[in-house]
Amino acid sequence: MNTSIDAGAWTEAARIYNSAVAAWAIGAAWELGALDELHENGVLDAEEFAARQELDAPATLAMFRALSAAGVVRREENKVTPTDTFPEIYQTRSLFHWLVRGSAELFRQMPSVLQRKNRVGQFYQRDAAAIAVACREISTFCYDPWFYAALDDLDFDLRQVTDLGCGSGERLQQILRRYPAAKGLGIDIAPAAVRVAEQSAAEAGLTDRLSFVEADMLSMAPRPEFAEVELLTCFMAGHDFWPREQCVATLSRLRDLFPNARRFLLGDATRTVGVPDQELRVFTLGFEVAHDLMGDFLPTAQDWESVFEEGGWRLRRKHSIDMVASEVIFELERR
Amino acid sequence: MNTSIDAGAWTEAARIYNSAVAAWAIGAAWELGALDELHENGVLDAEEFAARQELDAPATLAMFRALSAAGVVRREENKVTPTDTFPEIYQTRSLFHWLVRGSAELFRQMPSVLQRKNRVGQFYQRDAAAIAVACREISTFCYDPWFYAALDDLDFDLRQVTDLGCGSGERLQQILRRYPAAKGLGIDIAPAAVRVAEQSAAEAGLTDRLSFVEADMLSMAPRPEFAEVELLTCFMAGHDFWPREQCVATLSRLRDLFPNARRFLLGDATRTVGVPDQELRVFTLGFEVAHDLMGDFLPTAQDWESVFEEGGWRLRRKHSIDMVASEVIFELERR
Ligand SMILES: C[S@@+](CC[C@H](N)C(=O)[O-])C[C@H]1O[C@@H](n2cnc3c(N)ncnc32)[C@H](O)[C@@H]1O
Ligand SMILES: C[S@@+](CC[C@H](N)C(=O)[O-])C[C@H]1O[C@@H](n2cnc3c(N)ncnc32)[C@H](O)[C@@H]1O
Repeated sequence: MNTSIDAGAWTEAARIYNSAVAAWAIGAAWELGALDELHENGVLDAEEFAARQELDAPATLAMFRALSAAGVVRREENKVTPTDTFPEIYQTRSLFHWLVRGSAELFRQMPSVLQRKNRVGQFYQRDAAAIAVACREISTFCYDPWFYAALDDLDFDLRQVTDLGCGSGERLQQILRRYPAAKGLGIDIAPAAVRVAEQSAAEAGLTDRLSFVEADMLSMAPRPEFAEVELLTCFMAGHDFWPREQCVATLSRLRDLFPNARRFLLGDATRTVGVPDQELRVFTLGFEVAHDLMGDFLPTAQDWESVFEEGGWRLRRKHSIDMVASEVIFELERR
Repeated sequence: MNTSIDAGAWTEAARIYNSAVAAWAIGAAWELGALDELHENGVLDAEEFAARQELDAPATLAMFRALSAAGVVRREENKVTPTDTFPEIYQTRSLFHWLVRGSAELFRQMPSVLQRKNRVGQFYQRDAAAIAVACREISTFCYDPWFYAALDDLDFDLRQVTDLGCGSGERLQQILRRYPAAKGLGIDIAPAAVRVAEQSAAEAGLTDRLSFVEADMLSMAPRPEFAEVELLTCFMAGHDFWPREQCVATLSRLRDLFPNARRFLLGDATRTVGVPDQELRVFTLGFEVAHDLMGDFLPTAQDWESVFEEGGWRLRRKHSIDMVASEVIFELERR
């Protein structure tokens, strides 16, 4: 600390700092319903909001103060109104939630996670439940419109579908709503995901059409019911096929495991190429840094395109979504 | 999500988001020595740095990418150089560390911490060790120059000093270095702090002049050695005296417990008054929101000035530091 100190001149530091505090407030304000109220009513009284939601008043005001410091809202004492920036934040709230609620502990542990000697076993923590909540909303604007377009592109009447890495099973439910005669099978490696998916299917009254299996999509054994499957889907999980050699092997293994799968819809975020650091869109940086911290390979769209033929699939159509993390949906058909 | 979606237009969201990711990278880069290298050498090779420090190369590059996205460094592949913003960040790195390493879990828990039903017992988590590391450096530029000025202002030859809420005991060591004939007693409520302080005093060869007691400064019993004490100090802990009534009682209790204390140097951050949210300097927002989340009262400088006479002390001199969290040092003398 040999350089001269003038706190008033630390404007960039303040901007970055206050943005970090605000990011936490965005995640919290979404979860507590404050963003929805501001979106719907155009105004909110912090004290009244706290009383109605049984929240601590000074702590609640502090949350709005953080939003105000970053220009997300305007605040006069307790009166909170949206700024011109608010709509952006409202639309991207789930991306913030993914970062500050779902992945915060991974980022906090950066100094120890970077050290090679620590990178063994379960060397980082994330909040899987929070990530599931965020991903459900992220999917609605990063994948769903293109996913429905790809479904519409099916040239056969769907009767049996399998979703790999199905998470909450929400996507299978979407498909079954579109195809009332179809049945679905979800596969996920996480027992918690399978439990959530089963419960959610039961609540939707879909138990007779929708079932789930806990298995690793990379190494699972054949099952009789796989023979019926006409459509494979895999969303936000396909980068787990990689690195390259394992990906080719997995693709061709899936082709054998599901001998009657005519189509494979594969949607995932890919690694951004050629974007300068300072021009990275919302989410991309967080998503890619997180995967680098965890040591997860993240293929580029081009990486993907280089493996399909070898893996026994033909690329029928490609949807370059490129919303926040270079999302792509590949429509594959068997070779 | 009824509004139209255009990720390219989410520039403010990206700015806030990438700043949040960068804040974690600043804390990590300090801890791993990368900020010091950049400061000293003006350049760093990410790959070489990772190899030399035994860090994972892609994860290390991701850290620098986050710094680059927020304009803290410039990056060309692995070559990292400081930008014009770098000096600010270098100077304020401990404030970032306090936020993203020490207090991250408190901020992450915002949605549950706000709920009144959860605000019982130990309702939040922070990393006390990380906070101690950060506070040691924060003190060097937020308090030390004015603290030394206040020490120079003593008009007696110091022989016995007691530090309330002594933390690592660093401040007592500073005082004993200044006054080679003086002895010191540190008081802290946290067993971990007392342990660290004792060990650090032993390492400094000060065991015969420096001792520590685990006690609550608000309710501690009298001790014979208190009678000798001529100087009381309390830094970054005095807001724990509050609210008002308890503060007055504590001040006059300390006056009785230390009957020969001629001077009391009281330094602390105070609540900012009259600064619009968007003009808050680095740290202030994080510090004040954190205290509101924890339910800790934070007095203004004026609040403090209103209690001294009643508590049996006269304000001799006031150092309005106002660096990053409206810091003040009050020089008090017994009435
Ligand atoms: C980001 S979530 C996406 C969930 C869902 N596909 C969607 O679109 O919302 C990724 C899911 O893939 C699962 N997963 C990851 N690796 C897997 C593997 N090797 N086998 C099966 N499931 C896996 C995870 O447990 C998680 O539920
Ligand atoms: C932010 S640290 C400051 C440490 C040190 N005074 C310095 O200037 O760096 C605050 C310290 O006050 C201690 N503390 C808080 N409340 C206390 C109390 N009621 N009695 C004694 N110590 C207390 C904490 O354990 C912690 O070590």
